[in-house]
Amino acid sequence: MRILGIDPGLQTTGFGVIDAEGHALRYVASGTISTTHLARGDLPARLKVLFDGIGELRQRYQPDAAAIEIVFVNVNPQSTLLLGQARGACVTALVSCNLAVSEYTPMQMKQAVAGTGRAAKAEVQQMVKRLLQLPGLPGKDAADALGLAITHAHAGVATARIQEAGNMARRNTGMYKSGRAV
Amino acid sequence: MRILGIDPGLQTTGFGVIDAEGHALRYVASGTISTTHLARGDLPARLKVLFDGIGELRQRYQPDAAAIEIVFVNVNPQSTLLLGQARGACVTALVSCNLAVSEYTPMQMKQAVAGTGRAAKAEVQQMVKRLLQLPGLPGKDAADALGLAITHAHAGVATARIQEAGNMARRNTGMYKSGRAV
Repeated sequence: MRILGIDPGLQTTGFGVIDAEGHALRYVASGTISTTHLARGDLPARLKVLFDGIGELRQRYQPDAAAIEIVFVNVNPQSTLLLGQARGACVTALVSCNLAVSEYTPMQMKQAVAGTGRAAKAEVQQMVKRLLQLPGLPGKDAADALGLAITHAHAGVATARIQEAGNMARRNTGMYKSGRAV
Repeated sequence: MRILGIDPGLQTTGFGVIDAEGHALRYVASGTISTTHLARGDLPARLKVLFDGIGELRQRYQPDAAAIEIVFVNVNPQSTLLLGQARGACVTALVSCNLAVSEYTPMQMKQAVAGTGRAAKAEVQQMVKRLLQLPGLPGKDAADALGLAITHAHAGVATARIQEAGNMARRNTGMYKSGRAV
């Protein structure tokens, strides 16, 4: 399964693409989509850059699923409003062609990658480097995006395990009949 | 010129389509895009409904320009974040096919429609009904969206007037040469 992770931001949106097969993870690509070359006030143009950028990633890497960070309220309400709009554009870019989108908090991502929800940015970068056997440290936004993809890969493994356990339980209680799950 | 007005909201997004020729305005269509049939927590699905809904409007009415409300920070920061994401999806739907998007504050819209930036919702509805010679009152969200389209039509007339004045000034100062504007 190929997973596209997105760390949304109005100025810089991080992306990371990995292939996951069970516990095995393989790095495919990562980087950022930047809108800083555009006039700050031209929000429609900036949102278009995010939308088109994610569209290009989708086209190039053909992911099977996407994971995007759940953003939180900022101290500055105006920043909250801008971040919300950036995330809206990113989510829209993902769902507009029926890509399944899962959402994770930064805490869930840090927990999955570094083993603790309170890990610092640098720790996330280090752990992402190690988990994906990268030659160097990924940038912060790219590391977060790769972290989200890894989180989704782990969640997928966990879900598969739960389903397997469920199947076993059904089989053991006789709920599995004539070769078809009921 | 055909103008599509959008009043963005996560639960209900209002839309209004008008034709504007100088000062003459003609009603084409209006209504709402609702996401209330979806689970509150499934934000990606709700943003997709907004994106697809506006895409359908674009396809059906082929507008030449769009006008969308500038939203403000809510008392509740979480609501601000949700409204921001809804607006991000709406703006993205408009710009994703290169439709020119103009942004107006609610105050600018009320000023253009009712003559005062402090007009109440009911006044906006009444004035939109009168300006577009509607048989009945439009709903509040649709009225706001039609009001935004009207605001953009008025702004277009004002811009045309300024350009005309500019052309005259250039002609008078000899900057208009050999039949082409310089």
